[in-house]
Amino acid sequence: MSWGHAGPAVGGERYARAALSFLTDPGDPVLGALLECAGPDEVLAAIASGDPNPARSLPSASSADGRGARISVAVVDRAVERWRARLGDLPPVARLAAWERSGYTLVCPGDAEWPTQLDDLGDGRPVVLWLRGSIDLRFACLRSVSVVGSRAATAYGSHVATELAADLAGQGWTVISGGAFGIDACAHRGALAVGGCTVGVLASGLTFGYPKSHAGLFAEIERTGMMVSECAPERAPTRPGFLVRNRVIAALSRGTVVVEAALRSGAINTARHAGELNRAVMAVPGPVTADQSAGCHELIRECAATCVTGARDVIELVAPLGEVEPGPSREPAVPADNLDPVTTSVLAAVPRRTGRGPAAIATLAGVDLDTALRCLGLLAAAGHVERCDQGWRARTI
Amino acid sequence: MSWGHAGPAVGGERYARAALSFLTDPGDPVLGALLECAGPDEVLAAIASGDPNPARSLPSASSADGRGARISVAVVDRAVERWRARLGDLPPVARLAAWERSGYTLVCPGDAEWPTQLDDLGDGRPVVLWLRGSIDLRFACLRSVSVVGSRAATAYGSHVATELAADLAGQGWTVISGGAFGIDACAHRGALAVGGCTVGVLASGLTFGYPKSHAGLFAEIERTGMMVSECAPERAPTRPGFLVRNRVIAALSRGTVVVEAALRSGAINTARHAGELNRAVMAVPGPVTADQSAGCHELIRECAATCVTGARDVIELVAPLGEVEPGPSREPAVPADNLDPVTTSVLAAVPRRTGRGPAAIATLAGVDLDTALRCLGLLAAAGHVERCDQGWRARTI
Repeated sequence: MSWGHAGPAVGGERYARAALSFLTDPGDPVLGALLECAGPDEVLAAIASGDPNPARSLPSASSADGRGARISVAVVDRAVERWRARLGDLPPVARLAAWERSGYTLVCPGDAEWPTQLDDLGDGRPVVLWLRGSIDLRFACLRSVSVVGSRAATAYGSHVATELAADLAGQGWTVISGGAFGIDACAHRGALAVGGCTVGVLASGLTFGYPKSHAGLFAEIERTGMMVSECAPERAPTRPGFLVRNRVIAALSRGTVVVEAALRSGAINTARHAGELNRAVMAVPGPVTADQSAGCHELIRECAATCVTGARDVIELVAPLGEVEPGPSREPAVPADNLDPVTTSVLAAVPRRTGRGPAAIATLAGVDLDTALRCLGLLAAAGHVERCDQGWRARTI
Repeated sequence: MSWGHAGPAVGGERYARAALSFLTDPGDPVLGALLECAGPDEVLAAIASGDPNPARSLPSASSADGRGARISVAVVDRAVERWRARLGDLPPVARLAAWERSGYTLVCPGDAEWPTQLDDLGDGRPVVLWLRGSIDLRFACLRSVSVVGSRAATAYGSHVATELAADLAGQGWTVISGGAFGIDACAHRGALAVGGCTVGVLASGLTFGYPKSHAGLFAEIERTGMMVSECAPERAPTRPGFLVRNRVIAALSRGTVVVEAALRSGAINTARHAGELNRAVMAVPGPVTADQSAGCHELIRECAATCVTGARDVIELVAPLGEVEPGPSREPAVPADNLDPVTTSVLAAVPRRTGRGPAAIATLAGVDLDTALRCLGLLAAAGHVERCDQGWRARTI
């Protein structure tokens, strides 16, 4: 593990991004807007300058497009002042080197390991990612699914999350989650149980490691997967920080599955981010008598989330076209092998694509027309055939 | 109860329809096509004639459009011959009068009590309905929902079906089902438990009353609701008859809810009929670990059935526009009353429809622009606001 290829030299862009992760909060819209037109080193220099009007040293700041409005020099000045107040938190370069020795990697936009799908977040893209682990994050996330849900999971939800993650990981899909109690932990553990790859994205710094009681889990994830945070290592989590973190979980993966979530759960927020990023949004249904599934059902009903019941359904949605084998065919109400021989012969005479008239079907089946018509009526009721402009055709369900 | 307004005079259309329900099977496509161009009395006369070429006595039969193909004279002849073989089953008019005294009503297309929504079935429309009960069927079905599902119901499904039916019936909705074991019976009983209206549509004749052990349930339904069959009273059910019956359950109501159904359940067939008839198709989710919910999940995922969790969701879909009060608003991840005062004031300054720029929002909220931008970022992450062309607007979920 290392500080990437360039190392954290003071004055370099990489050092500046690391430093900004100490001074600013993830997802700060002023910083995001600034970084669209100024380098992180320029922003850091403005913070460190002691200039009471630092925006003057950010040549493009005064023309920056601040989320639909021009960010005024005064706004930048006040933001820089806020960040400057945290300069005391900024560790010396020697400390950064110590983190490096303890297994951290710093990944910046443009690095080979930077997951470029995070760029879909626009100016909400993380300034930097702090990593601890043993895989290539970008590579691991190319085939990944986020599995998230309620902290207050039921036995049912815990079981389903564990099985789903194990099945996904067992088929080579990386399972991303938030390291929280409940569904998140089950998702990580399910992937670990089959020797699969899992990624934990925390709302705290990784040294802080929230929740503390998951230290063992996080250590295990680091051993075979990856722990990720956009916060400086010792940063404690904040309440809004969890919501801001959720956008990273959603953006890293091809789709987000919510296993159990109450109506106001943060997992719903993750799913919404996934939808905004044009990722697949999926929810696992559960008993309508359980509050913990109410958010999943609402996602399905109101937000067009796909109802998924297992890894096969998930992979069908997120896998590249052509990679997934078609599932077992959806059978009609009466299976074809329960039909009597005459009806079977009529069914065999019904074409799959364009329709065929009943007289032609009767001839092909070797029955008279009224037998064919009776059989077609029964086959239609049973869901095997349907009428079309040209007559009858086999139904594909 | 009576034989309708006209009485079962031999030779009349009403008597002919009653007689045809003894001689033919429900949903017979040849009979359906014949009745599109010949009167039921003409068809009955042709059956009774003894003529070896009865189609000659059905003037329009030779030009009838038989489901995409001209029905040939030979096909009609053979069908009539098949029906003629059952002439021995046809009871004397005196027997019809005995049924009348025992509480049957015969309802034909065109009668005041005929549920005209059945006409959506086209030439698959029942020839006649045999009724036993104490309500006006047509009126009761104007506000009705079909609740169907697996015979092998779980405790969960039984609970949900009972509660759902009770809630629907308690709000003035008629609950239609098929009188079978499991979900069907729970649906009827839930409606009965709250003194609501329920309709049982059997695949057997009503005197036969399949399943036999539900005789008590059927008697109770008759007392306050209605039992319905398109079969003659003593007809036993046939295997395909259940599937054919399902189209009537689907057509009578505004929508069909499947509570529990395995992948090959007949309830899936009912839901499919509902979809073809442009009725609402709904399914109640359940544990993905239960086979009994697999059909429901498939309906939701593959057949665009709406995921419903209770009577409110159902009524929202089937009630006439404007009748339903809007549900409790879908809340964002962090409820608005948990926000700090400054963020609350910024949220209050964000308009609902067209967007507003951050500078204007800051002015309205009485905060400086960078505070407004920080708050907007947080509010966006929490799902309260979203960006749009004109700036920011409140999010309606």
